[in-house]
Amino acid sequence: MTKTRLEAFSDGVIAIIITIMVLQLKIPHSTSWVDIKPLFPVLTCYLMSFIMIGIYWGNHHHLIHAVEQVNSKMLWANMHLLFWLSLVPFATEWMGETNFDRIAVAVYAVLLDMCGIAYFILLKMIMKTHSHDPALYGPLKKQGKKGMLSALLYTLAIPAAFIHPLISGILYLCVAVLWWMPDRNIEQNIKNH
Amino acid sequence: MTKTRLEAFSDGVIAIIITIMVLQLKIPHSTSWVDIKPLFPVLTCYLMSFIMIGIYWGNHHHLIHAVEQVNSKMLWANMHLLFWLSLVPFATEWMGETNFDRIAVAVYAVLLDMCGIAYFILLKMIMKTHSHDPALYGPLKKQGKKGMLSALLYTLAIPAAFIHPLISGILYLCVAVLWWMPDRNIEQNIKNH
Amino acid sequence: MTKTRLEAFSDGVIAIIITIMVLQLKIPHSTSWVDIKPLFPVLTCYLMSFIMIGIYWGNHHHLIHAVEQVNSKMLWANMHLLFWLSLVPFATEWMGETNFDRIAVAVYAVLLDMCGIAYFILLKMIMKTHSHDPALYGPLKKQGKKGMLSALLYTLAIPAAFIHPLISGILYLCVAVLWWMPDRNIEQNIKNH
Amino acid sequence: MTKTRLEAFSDGVIAIIITIMVLQLKIPHSTSWVDIKPLFPVLTCYLMSFIMIGIYWGNHHHLIHAVEQVNSKMLWANMHLLFWLSLVPFATEWMGETNFDRIAVAVYAVLLDMCGIAYFILLKMIMKTHSHDPALYGPLKKQGKKGMLSALLYTLAIPAAFIHPLISGILYLCVAVLWWMPDRNIEQNIKNH
Repeated sequence: MTKTRLEAFSDGVIAIIITIMVLQLKIPHSTSWVDIKPLFPVLTCYLMSFIMIGIYWGNHHHLIHAVEQVNSKMLWANMHLLFWLSLVPFATEWMGETNFDRIAVAVYAVLLDMCGIAYFILLKMIMKTHSHDPALYGPLKKQGKKGMLSALLYTLAIPAAFIHPLISGILYLCVAVLWWMPDRNIEQNIKNH
Repeated sequence: MTKTRLEAFSDGVIAIIITIMVLQLKIPHSTSWVDIKPLFPVLTCYLMSFIMIGIYWGNHHHLIHAVEQVNSKMLWANMHLLFWLSLVPFATEWMGETNFDRIAVAVYAVLLDMCGIAYFILLKMIMKTHSHDPALYGPLKKQGKKGMLSALLYTLAIPAAFIHPLISGILYLCVAVLWWMPDRNIEQNIKNH
Repeated sequence: MTKTRLEAFSDGVIAIIITIMVLQLKIPHSTSWVDIKPLFPVLTCYLMSFIMIGIYWGNHHHLIHAVEQVNSKMLWANMHLLFWLSLVPFATEWMGETNFDRIAVAVYAVLLDMCGIAYFILLKMIMKTHSHDPALYGPLKKQGKKGMLSALLYTLAIPAAFIHPLISGILYLCVAVLWWMPDRNIEQNIKNH
Repeated sequence: MTKTRLEAFSDGVIAIIITIMVLQLKIPHSTSWVDIKPLFPVLTCYLMSFIMIGIYWGNHHHLIHAVEQVNSKMLWANMHLLFWLSLVPFATEWMGETNFDRIAVAVYAVLLDMCGIAYFILLKMIMKTHSHDPALYGPLKKQGKKGMLSALLYTLAIPAAFIHPLISGILYLCVAVLWWMPDRNIEQNIKNH
């Protein structure tokens, strides 16, 4: 029962985060090319963050679905993840409005890194509670490896932003591809449950 | 189970999209007619987008309700649809603020076209997974025809905006009427299920 | 099943409407009394609209809960109600920012009138579908009477705003008191179901 | 059934409150240190309010979950709580933008005090309805004591803001620690139910 409400609250917050980003798209003052052009970096950032948060939603969905018991620690680990995710619209807008300024791109990378770490902590907490269930523990461990790899990629994206923002962009893309599909093992495990 | 959360997330995002548009209505500086007048195109655009998104919600509702199994591909086809829908408030505001400027109306038409195509892709994906179920496949095929027709009308609305924005408006209205009532066949099929 | 999603969507939209109003509270430029003073009419309007929408939520809750079957017409009557409710934050902000200007108060009265009429239409539509159920029909009829009375009060509030905005305010208060408690008969009927 | 919708509506409103606060983070005009520096008090306030609302969500969750019957009075006591919570983003922004101005910090303390009192009223109302259930009544009484203590701390934080805003901050922290973990007794009681 508690799990249902945790899912509902997380879904609500993630749905709001993904949608309010559009409020930060400022309409151009005219329909001339000069005014429309600055929209493109902003839209690119919007699309990227939309995909990132979409991936988190999908994986969060699978992760919580696999959980059997929710405790206070998990609730707060989840809240911690939502906190960092909630800052994504801010970093997205900043990166877009400054047309991929190095510092803004690095801040965005730091933020995604924090989201990744928060997800990892939530994952570890769930693993600890479900360590007796080998059918679940295996795939979660696999997710943990993915989590560490993506945290590494995000960390690399921070200094990379100062060389060229595009390198960070490519690193984000790698993480996206890595997580795109939720872990099929967890999916299968759910089916068997 | 997964279906419930997909419905809940989509409902959440669509509810937010339809509601945050009101945040873009800027209150007039005074209560004189000169300041109130520019509100009318903005309100007209708001009403139109409200109806459009309302129609998507209704049909999406019926479509997902008919689904028996959700997979990762469907999840992403749904996310793709939500992405284009999420840009509707932006295009609505732009069209309203510029008092139906040709370019803004054309951009709005392109956006609705993308929403239509995304809905069509989601529909096709669901059809492929449920091809073994003739009771469902028939009405979905009918929806597919409607989808193609409305995509055609939206595509026509793009060049039409450069002749006169009103022609685009009438084309949008035709699509609205076309989709107004969710497919009764699907509705009946659900009842028999 | 359809009813659950209608409830969820309406709840979502109403929750967003009631909450985004706070985004329109502009923080004062300083902490001096001159800058804080204009906040009071804005906060008064916020409180009033919060109560009004809270009442709609409570009654909508009871109304839909009593429904046994949802059809497309009801879906659109509900959408119609949500459209007018969604404009409440806009009218609230306008009334507050202009410090109860006569025209803004009258526009607010017109809007509440439209909400009342939309609720009345939804009620009538539900009554028509459930006319065979006397246990439900009776209390709905009673709600219909309340609906007509409050529409009358809102209509009176429109010209009253031009005499003195306070008269409109008192009329709104009367409607609030009238609807405060959801119809006990419906509540009891639900218990017997 | 009514309880489910009350939970869903409250979750929706709280999820929106916690998330829209991010819309009030204004992106810096440049990436220079001078422009980034004022972000820190704003982010600190955001974090503090995020934790405060997170605590309310967790406890509200536990409180409503323990409820067996919902009546109109509870509905309005809940609405009253949501009203004060909905003002948190406004006070948070004000406190952050003024870099912890004494008056803004005091207003924030008053607001948290009102939230605390509203929670206490809701608690008392639920206690009255469930006074026959000793297993539930005991832990609720314990929560009531915590509620009174935290209201006292918030009240102290009001004058403290005029001595030094940091004292208020420490008092808020004490309340946070006090409520951090939802009452284990209620949790256990739920398990036995």
